Amino acid sequence: MEKLSIVKIGGNIIEDQSSLKAFLKLFSSIEGKKILVHGGGKRATSMASKLGIESKMVNGRRITDAETLEVITMVYGGLVNKNMVAQLQAFNTNAIGLTGADVNSIVSEKRPVKDIDYGFVGDVKQVNFKSVDALMQAGFVPVFCAITHDGNGQLLNTNADTITSQLAIGMSHLYETSIYYCFELDGVLKDINDKNSVIKHIDSKIYKDLLNEGIIADGMLPKLENCFNALQHGVTTINMGNISMLTKENDNFTRITL
Amino acid sequence: MEKLSIVKIGGNIIEDQSSLKAFLKLFSSIEGKKILVHGGGKRATSMASKLGIESKMVNGRRITDAETLEVITMVYGGLVNKNMVAQLQAFNTNAIGLTGADVNSIVSEKRPVKDIDYGFVGDVKQVNFKSVDALMQAGFVPVFCAITHDGNGQLLNTNADTITSQLAIGMSHLYETSIYYCFELDGVLKDINDKNSVIKHIDSKIYKDLLNEGIIADGMLPKLENCFNALQHGVTTINMGNISMLTKENDNFTRITL
Repeated sequence: MEKLSIVKIGGNIIEDQSSLKAFLKLFSSIEGKKILVHGGGKRATSMASKLGIESKMVNGRRITDAETLEVITMVYGGLVNKNMVAQLQAFNTNAIGLTGADVNSIVSEKRPVKDIDYGFVGDVKQVNFKSVDALMQAGFVPVFCAITHDGNGQLLNTNADTITSQLAIGMSHLYETSIYYCFELDGVLKDINDKNSVIKHIDSKIYKDLLNEGIIADGMLPKLENCFNALQHGVTTINMGNISMLTKENDNFTRITL
Repeated sequence: MEKLSIVKIGGNIIEDQSSLKAFLKLFSSIEGKKILVHGGGKRATSMASKLGIESKMVNGRRITDAETLEVITMVYGGLVNKNMVAQLQAFNTNAIGLTGADVNSIVSEKRPVKDIDYGFVGDVKQVNFKSVDALMQAGFVPVFCAITHDGNGQLLNTNADTITSQLAIGMSHLYETSIYYCFELDGVLKDINDKNSVIKHIDSKIYKDLLNEGIIADGMLPKLENCFNALQHGVTTINMGNISMLTKENDNFTRITL
């Protein structure tokens, strides 16, 4: 099976123009088939505030009302995504910017209202991996923002980590698929206060041990749950660390396998 | 040669949700290969004003400073384009939303500063018709907004009529290409005050006569100049009228040929 790298970058890289440029240059140097997924970070929040739209958060998650969805569509789908595509073209990467509505690539379902009404938030239902592959077969590099659609004309705000793992699960029908989650840390740390304590490899057994020892907790727990779910559904390897893990010089990051 | 229809819609259709829906349904019913090009209309102006950005016009043309370009990228490339793509998907049209940066489809040059500095405005230099065709060959329907790029990472605001005609000229290397310019009028009128005076056919000779009689003037003059330029460079037919010309029932519109 041919290899495919899916790289996800978070808000803090996007917000700093020189970090973003350095990242896009690195991304362009990745050989073989690849896909980029990006979040939007604080730009949507600051744009909303400029427009006098209040950002409502519940348990750290954004409530997406109709006005907020408009801002997200403008900022993630337009401003961030299209500028990234233009910059990738300058690095000779033939990028194509996408939401889940484009080529009907990612269909989601509006989250049902239980205790909390999250508004226009979508949970991924289906990845049309053949359509995404058709773009790659034509020589293009997909760049996804964190927006999906319900198939009935409604765009939906969707978590970028989830898009990444669901896309990877879908693409693993056709490719030996690896995910690279780029974030601020060098990797999963054994001691949160010691940035030199990167755990270089985690598999199912080590993961269980780390859980028992209470080393994995807080924000890292759902991230790793999400990783093992992807691995159980066909993804080959997941890597977590800072963007330099995309070079061959740096081996100080966390590699996760089943 | 296979046939290709390129349809351009203006701002007034986009601004009214029910007109837009009616149009997208009609567009979806067009058989064979097709491309949609849209402007952005007044939404960019109203968004700019909400953000406290002054819209500067010179001779009826927008001056695109850095802030205005951001708004255009958000509104045309994000909000308008992606909502249109989602709605087309609901009509079973497998749409893909594009700027000229995506798949490097339309490369332009920042307009040189002479008497007026138009800012981040691009004049089309090259249409990569093979890349656009690769998307259509994969079964997708391109939906272009009025943004191009310079190949060096810079997005540029570009007139939607020009994008349409340049795209059509490019695609005519591969297809028997027709343009449909949808606007408020039923077609080119012999008497501007009589909406029943649609001129059903204009060719080079009739055009010369109409010019001599002073019937073509003002806003219609550059539009028709642009049309004959496209026809001279390979485009087969250009149609101008309201959206019902896309149905087979209405023959009350202007057909332009060489």
